[in-house]
Amino acid sequence: MVEADIFADGHEVVSAVLKVGDREWPMKALVNDRWRGEFTVSELGLHSYTIEAWVNHFETWRRDVEKKRKAEMEIGSELLAGAQMLEHAAARAPKTESRELQDAANRLLTGDVAVDERISQLMFRHAERLFPARYERDLKLLVEPELARFSAWYEMFPRSVGTFRDCERVLPEIAGMGFDILYFPPIHPIGQSFRKGPNNRLEAGPNDPGSPWAIGSEEGGHKSIHPALGTFEDFRHLVTEATKSNLHIALDIAFQCSPDHPYVREHKQWFRIRPDGSIQYAENPPKKYQDIYPINFETDDWQALWEELRSIFQFWIDQGVKVFRVDNPHTKSFRFWEWCISTLKEKHPELIFLSEAFTRPKMMYYLAKLGFTQSYNYFPWRNHKRELTKYFTELTRTQVKEYFRANLWPNTPDILTEYLQFGGRPAFVTRFILAATLGASYGIYGPAFELCENKPREPGSEEYLNSEKYEIRHWDTSKARNMRDLIKRVNQARRVHPALQSDHSLEFMETDNEQIIAYAKSDPETTDLVVTVVNLDPHHTQRGWVSLPLERWGIGPTDNLQFHDLLTDARFLWSGRRIYVELDPQFVPAHLLVLRRYVRTERDFDYFL
Amino acid sequence: MVEADIFADGHEVVSAVLKVGDREWPMKALVNDRWRGEFTVSELGLHSYTIEAWVNHFETWRRDVEKKRKAEMEIGSELLAGAQMLEHAAARAPKTESRELQDAANRLLTGDVAVDERISQLMFRHAERLFPARYERDLKLLVEPELARFSAWYEMFPRSVGTFRDCERVLPEIAGMGFDILYFPPIHPIGQSFRKGPNNRLEAGPNDPGSPWAIGSEEGGHKSIHPALGTFEDFRHLVTEATKSNLHIALDIAFQCSPDHPYVREHKQWFRIRPDGSIQYAENPPKKYQDIYPINFETDDWQALWEELRSIFQFWIDQGVKVFRVDNPHTKSFRFWEWCISTLKEKHPELIFLSEAFTRPKMMYYLAKLGFTQSYNYFPWRNHKRELTKYFTELTRTQVKEYFRANLWPNTPDILTEYLQFGGRPAFVTRFILAATLGASYGIYGPAFELCENKPREPGSEEYLNSEKYEIRHWDTSKARNMRDLIKRVNQARRVHPALQSDHSLEFMETDNEQIIAYAKSDPETTDLVVTVVNLDPHHTQRGWVSLPLERWGIGPTDNLQFHDLLTDARFLWSGRRIYVELDPQFVPAHLLVLRRYVRTERDFDYFL
Repeated sequence: MVEADIFADGHEVVSAVLKVGDREWPMKALVNDRWRGEFTVSELGLHSYTIEAWVNHFETWRRDVEKKRKAEMEIGSELLAGAQMLEHAAARAPKTESRELQDAANRLLTGDVAVDERISQLMFRHAERLFPARYERDLKLLVEPELARFSAWYEMFPRSVGTFRDCERVLPEIAGMGFDILYFPPIHPIGQSFRKGPNNRLEAGPNDPGSPWAIGSEEGGHKSIHPALGTFEDFRHLVTEATKSNLHIALDIAFQCSPDHPYVREHKQWFRIRPDGSIQYAENPPKKYQDIYPINFETDDWQALWEELRSIFQFWIDQGVKVFRVDNPHTKSFRFWEWCISTLKEKHPELIFLSEAFTRPKMMYYLAKLGFTQSYNYFPWRNHKRELTKYFTELTRTQVKEYFRANLWPNTPDILTEYLQFGGRPAFVTRFILAATLGASYGIYGPAFELCENKPREPGSEEYLNSEKYEIRHWDTSKARNMRDLIKRVNQARRVHPALQSDHSLEFMETDNEQIIAYAKSDPETTDLVVTVVNLDPHHTQRGWVSLPLERWGIGPTDNLQFHDLLTDARFLWSGRRIYVELDPQFVPAHLLVLRRYVRTERDFDYFL
Repeated sequence: MVEADIFADGHEVVSAVLKVGDREWPMKALVNDRWRGEFTVSELGLHSYTIEAWVNHFETWRRDVEKKRKAEMEIGSELLAGAQMLEHAAARAPKTESRELQDAANRLLTGDVAVDERISQLMFRHAERLFPARYERDLKLLVEPELARFSAWYEMFPRSVGTFRDCERVLPEIAGMGFDILYFPPIHPIGQSFRKGPNNRLEAGPNDPGSPWAIGSEEGGHKSIHPALGTFEDFRHLVTEATKSNLHIALDIAFQCSPDHPYVREHKQWFRIRPDGSIQYAENPPKKYQDIYPINFETDDWQALWEELRSIFQFWIDQGVKVFRVDNPHTKSFRFWEWCISTLKEKHPELIFLSEAFTRPKMMYYLAKLGFTQSYNYFPWRNHKRELTKYFTELTRTQVKEYFRANLWPNTPDILTEYLQFGGRPAFVTRFILAATLGASYGIYGPAFELCENKPREPGSEEYLNSEKYEIRHWDTSKARNMRDLIKRVNQARRVHPALQSDHSLEFMETDNEQIIAYAKSDPETTDLVVTVVNLDPHHTQRGWVSLPLERWGIGPTDNLQFHDLLTDARFLWSGRRIYVELDPQFVPAHLLVLRRYVRTERDFDYFL
């Protein structure tokens, strides 16, 4: 749907169309010179459109002749003028249509003033548009796969499971929970120089595996696989097996190198060189990250560099990967991303790029405009009702929604929030339900999440104690059963209910308790409507009233409603504008309510739609 | 003041400037990647500016070295890098400054890390800006004379006074009332064909003078003067005399022709020709205006036409006119106005163009963007408190204020509103005070206004009975004494109080009576503050409380204030957030209050600032 202010000097009739490729879609005037048009595109990829408007002399003529006819004024001269216009258009039209126009002209000349819609349409198409005004920009519309809008991600360190072959054994479990994407941190060889030990210690022991983000060793770089994980054949086998379970394997693309990366030897010019000839390592004084060399996107050799970096994506696409999580894209060149993503998408419009830009909001949004499909965001640190309401209103009710898709993560290997550290299991359940229902796309870093792993490395830190980033963890997932059942239930609800598959319909509802947040999502096509109510307090049972915007939903204040709680499978009947809730964090801290309207009673059954 | 969102990928320091011509003005970061800069231009006319921003490697270096120095880290390599940057810039700088930069480089090499603001400034100026980003558009800023912002207009039919020589006699009276601009309806020869009689009758008698807007006869067109008004010498004499009284003569430019206009004979191609060879007259079926031929701006001969029309302005500019009221500009080509006004202003930036576009809001606003200085607007039909508040909030608190200057007319020869028809003298006083205080620019059509002429041609019409448009009226201005004194008083207040000379500070205040409107205007430079309170009910005395936003004005709730009513010269003392008013329409239906703060008591005097 496209709107524009369109007007011309004078009192003539204005016409306007949306031009999309070589097709035209009509626009209609609303009020106060505001116009609207709609068009549909179904092909993935980039489309461009613009607006053309012009003074429609034929429609002006029709309007004025009609006025004069009604006022019983002389219109002989007008009929002549109309016939002239029809004849001009006839000369421009293809054969059959030309004849229709010529016939209409002849009828006019015999005094028959009736011009029907068909002729009006033909004139719209064939009459010359004098001095058409065209919006100066070609506007872009990007059509992306459904997975861009609706996806559930599961992040897992493959090395903690073992090899890629070992990973295949956990695929059914992850797919069974209802996830779409299984995302691995970098799977490449890891550098030895300045390798970090457990808990990010500066010195690593001989058996410490190092951080997967310190990419590159003598064994290879971004186009190689860590030998402990397996071979390319193993990787491709895993991708194929995952696909059978409807799981996409997502890789982490982190454009940075360990000092042992082959690029360092082969392309020293791609890094920043200090005056003493050494390569500049990453730092944030007083912190030094000597195990990481940032890439210099402004190197004189930038063309070769950019080509090589883009070829890394292409390399993994060729191995069957189509979902990428990009590490810290905001510290790399904006222009590089714009070029890299757009050219890759030209060939592969199905690609998904998740931006890990935990940075200032305008940079985050700009990366979305440059081509990133989804983005991490501030969800982990929005815990209070007011914070959540404000932030998600900004994301879903302002222009941000036109280009930015939030992907909500309660935790990541880098983020163990205070809320999770201190709220126990209820905090994990609450944040999971918020993520999976506020966001059509969300993800968790597991099995740490399902096991409610909540110890920080030190007080005040958001880093995990004994983080998987620096050591291999062997998780006892048998203890995750309970949480995984809940996850499965919520993911099933997301798959069944189109309301939960998009963020644009999100609306917050009033509650009389600051610890209770309530919101609804609906699907305009199916009229599916899901109301989520969450107790934000992980420590205490909270009670309160939730106000339902019944009028907005087209429901009368006394209509009979059925609520079906997808978390507990309970059903109850209700009518009226307010519902009472009582949520115990030790049991289930939320309702996930499908609202059905009572239609009729027939024999012993009540029907709800 | 210019704001922009400015950011770069990475963590480097960003710098930005406003580029205005060949000057640069610094921009500063506010919060959340919002930047602001300010520049001053004093020359009348069109200025253009844009924004340039870049990653400032030197300032990044300064920041990082400072961090490392504080952390007592090794910075030998950094000092080398800094010296290199300074030396590069030295090579680009003029001689003295080059030496300063070289000296700073040498100091760095000896380990002296202090880089002062002077060096920072020199680097800002001379260091190469790598990959600067420039805002893609050159933005326009138009500087217009003060009269564009602050003006009081008086419209008068000169033929009702007599000749131009006769008009000179009324100049002192009009200037004495405090008007800046004396505006005449068209002063050109009037057509005979289809001339309209009194009250717009289709047939004119032999002595009926016709409508001044039916321009052109055998005696000439838009560059001629109606013989009954006098000669060019008379006109120039009048302009000179008016100037002595600080009055500008404004002419009415109406681009339309009577059938007798010389253009009709000489340039038939400038009009629309009907299929029967006749020229298309103006019409709005079933109404015909056979005395008026509209001009066809899309004629094939448009270049010659446009040049000729522009030359009409130039012709009158050469006679000493610099203020023009343009009749119905929205029915002429937008592109014509854009070209005509911008090219005229290039030579004569002091020109004022008042747009008489009583049309849809977006067209009205667009004409302002195309170059019109001021515009008529919906003020005549905004009578209720809510209507006035909403409309003037739109004009002064939204982006509209950046390009649109409203000129408020309670009446015109075409507009005798219902409010004036039924409200008697109090309605005229009320509307006058609203116009002159809500609008830094306003005008009245007199002497009809001062004489409270309020009879419509017929019920429901906004046309005057016995309108001056079609006949010569001899006004007895001795009866206007009382109203003219009020006008003089208000215009004096406008001249003394800068608060009333601009619209951007307008703020409405709460009152507890729907018939009482209250608003304030202030001048940031002089802290002048004027509060206007008006009874909108012309029939009854109204009473109520007005809430003052004291906090916004920096006044304490118990501070002593003095109010000075500029209409009655009454003064009273007050303190507190609310003031009581009681306004009798038969006496004065308004307060025009200057607010002065109590400063100190010294001997027997109270001082207020």
